[in-house]
Amino acid sequence: MPQNKIKVLDNGYVALVDCMGMDKAVIEAARRCYMSEPQGEDAAAAADAKLVRHLILKDHGTPFEHAYFRFDVKCPIFVARQWIRHRIGTYNEMSLRYCLAKRDYYTPSSLTGEALEKYKKSVNEAFDTYETLVASGIKREQARGVLPLSLYTLYYWTVNARSLMNFLKLRLDKAAQAEIREYAEALLEIFKEKMPVTAKAFEEKMKPKE
Amino acid sequence: MPQNKIKVLDNGYVALVDCMGMDKAVIEAARRCYMSEPQGEDAAAAADAKLVRHLILKDHGTPFEHAYFRFDVKCPIFVARQWIRHRIGTYNEMSLRYCLAKRDYYTPSSLTGEALEKYKKSVNEAFDTYETLVASGIKREQARGVLPLSLYTLYYWTVNARSLMNFLKLRLDKAAQAEIREYAEALLEIFKEKMPVTAKAFEEKMKPKE
Amino acid sequence: MPQNKIKVLDNGYVALVDCMGMDKAVIEAARRCYMSEPQGEDAAAAADAKLVRHLILKDHGTPFEHAYFRFDVKCPIFVARQWIRHRIGTYNEMSLRYCLAKRDYYTPSSLTGEALEKYKKSVNEAFDTYETLVASGIKREQARGVLPLSLYTLYYWTVNARSLMNFLKLRLDKAAQAEIREYAEALLEIFKEKMPVTAKAFEEKMKPKE
Amino acid sequence: MPQNKIKVLDNGYVALVDCMGMDKAVIEAARRCYMSEPQGEDAAAAADAKLVRHLILKDHGTPFEHAYFRFDVKCPIFVARQWIRHRIGTYNEMSLRYCLAKRDYYTPSSLTGEALEKYKKSVNEAFDTYETLVASGIKREQARGVLPLSLYTLYYWTVNARSLMNFLKLRLDKAAQAEIREYAEALLEIFKEKMPVTAKAFEEKMKPKE
Repeated sequence: MPQNKIKVLDNGYVALVDCMGMDKAVIEAARRCYMSEPQGEDAAAAADAKLVRHLILKDHGTPFEHAYFRFDVKCPIFVARQWIRHRIGTYNEMSLRYCLAKRDYYTPSSLTGEALEKYKKSVNEAFDTYETLVASGIKREQARGVLPLSLYTLYYWTVNARSLMNFLKLRLDKAAQAEIREYAEALLEIFKEKMPVTAKAFEEKMKPKE
Repeated sequence: MPQNKIKVLDNGYVALVDCMGMDKAVIEAARRCYMSEPQGEDAAAAADAKLVRHLILKDHGTPFEHAYFRFDVKCPIFVARQWIRHRIGTYNEMSLRYCLAKRDYYTPSSLTGEALEKYKKSVNEAFDTYETLVASGIKREQARGVLPLSLYTLYYWTVNARSLMNFLKLRLDKAAQAEIREYAEALLEIFKEKMPVTAKAFEEKMKPKE
Repeated sequence: MPQNKIKVLDNGYVALVDCMGMDKAVIEAARRCYMSEPQGEDAAAAADAKLVRHLILKDHGTPFEHAYFRFDVKCPIFVARQWIRHRIGTYNEMSLRYCLAKRDYYTPSSLTGEALEKYKKSVNEAFDTYETLVASGIKREQARGVLPLSLYTLYYWTVNARSLMNFLKLRLDKAAQAEIREYAEALLEIFKEKMPVTAKAFEEKMKPKE
Repeated sequence: MPQNKIKVLDNGYVALVDCMGMDKAVIEAARRCYMSEPQGEDAAAAADAKLVRHLILKDHGTPFEHAYFRFDVKCPIFVARQWIRHRIGTYNEMSLRYCLAKRDYYTPSSLTGEALEKYKKSVNEAFDTYETLVASGIKREQARGVLPLSLYTLYYWTVNARSLMNFLKLRLDKAAQAEIREYAEALLEIFKEKMPVTAKAFEEKMKPKE
């Protein structure tokens, strides 16, 4: 059922589950301010694109809050911790108080040879310990103290186009960590497909001036 | 195109333009926490209703933020001023800086006889003055200083089910002003049609204990 | 008790009631990220100013959310309606459901001669009608329907430095209505006195490039 | 300089750094609505307490948003992940992209004997691996993938009294995890000292009906 499921990192993904409004809602909201109506179909499309470009350039953000996305996300915990700093949006995440953690973790592709071996050994021993502790009757919520930050987690994320563009601006930036940048690229792809007019104006604005 | 347009007061309305997720998104979000899946179709419907009732009773609000509505609203300015106090949501309103105000205002049905006459006379003279001032070259944004609080305004309102339920709780209350209560009742009607499971649990909770 | 009360328009004001954190909290919050400590007092002041400039330039907004202001504001209703669109902040406003409106309204200084007379006459007749309706037993909350948008209202506004800078950016802009621009200028004055380091960096960024 | 530093868990703490407004701001904000003034000092104190109790009982939340706290917090990452779900508030946290993690982690006091040994061994091996990886040139932001969820982190948290009470309501509840409950108790202690009138009304409402 999820549309546009995109694989990210070694075992994560981003999938679009729902969306609402898109470019149309942005344009309707912006036109409400002036109570204006475009004439003719071709003229309308050109006028709409121009209006959206103007909103993006002038940082008029509210019209973009009428377009909503719901994503299904699977990412490592350390990525989730960066993600959730974006407070304008809704998260429902699987809970390690109630669910038993699976041995499903992220390994950076940059690790090779001895470093890779050490990384995997350490993480696997952490899972071994977790499983032993849980089996011996320690609560899941406490046993998880040994689990690694590379553990994959899952959540639904509902976000409007304004907050999404803010996420993309910060997380596509070369200063962002490579891992979350990969998620941002997957989100950008879905954004471009679903809101082509807005995404085009957004990308024009983001493009570094030469 | 707007579905479910409902007339409110003498000349206002509420109309549903868009929606996303509804009961299904709430249930999926809540289940994500436990990574649980219901078995069998009938069992599922009963289990879903029970889950939603539990969320409502325990005030677990986030799952309801995955369901979104976009409404088109026409209401008097004094109602809009109460409405916009609800900050979790998006508003795009027609602007009296750019649009010329129409002689379209609210008259309380409780007014009769002399009171009604005085009310209408006062409001109409305000519009007369406004029109004269604008015609004489005064800016619309300044001439509006004479316009009455009963003037109708128009906006799009995008809101999630959690924030909508908070609005309904406060604005269906007998302590709320009668005018906004009428809008709340129109919104409740749409809410019940679109999110029957959630609305049922909400109404059960709201019902005064006997 | 309110510090820094500044008169605005013909009969409005802005006054600082409370503040918290200011430049110091911003710097502490930003340094927390790196767990860094400055050395030596002069070096520290220079390093702090550089850090704040960097945050402003790069749009790193969260550290500025640790600095808070509480303002007492008196402004015309049509200005309050623009103001309250800024949703990140808290408003508590006098209510015309419970309070009797005073004959206290804004008159644009640009109005002269006949236009001024018409404006005042219209507004005063509206107050006359309001008072008659209330005296005859009509509820205040309904009688207010005749009151003009130029009526002064009062509220407390609590806002963090990030949201305040966003307000200033939009409302000091030449595209903003002159009336709210005057309020923004009063707020800027207080902001500069209370957060000199941040305000300096903010003004540098806002200055149009030549 | 931090006032009221309270030790929590084996190596964490909560400390009040700044505060603004407190009970006084709540009362002023609530009275603004009615433009009312209390008479006489004793009468005032009793009237204020009654007003605050009324606001708490009726869930009138906005007046409490004029009172702000800034806390310095040290807690395990798995606690921070629950905490940060409270989106109405500001967080600035130390970053493991820039800072080297210290061997500073939480050990549940319920662990004893073999379980305790396994837990400590696993966590210490994770730190060993982290340090080896970093020493061999792996980026801190990637090496942290092996670090345990029990690692202590540090942040500033700025929050208003309304959002703090929501935190307390949820995190003092017996359904909350014991670890975050201990933080909630420390916060409650500070809250009671700084906002005695509000805290008293809050505790009365929270008390289970018998």
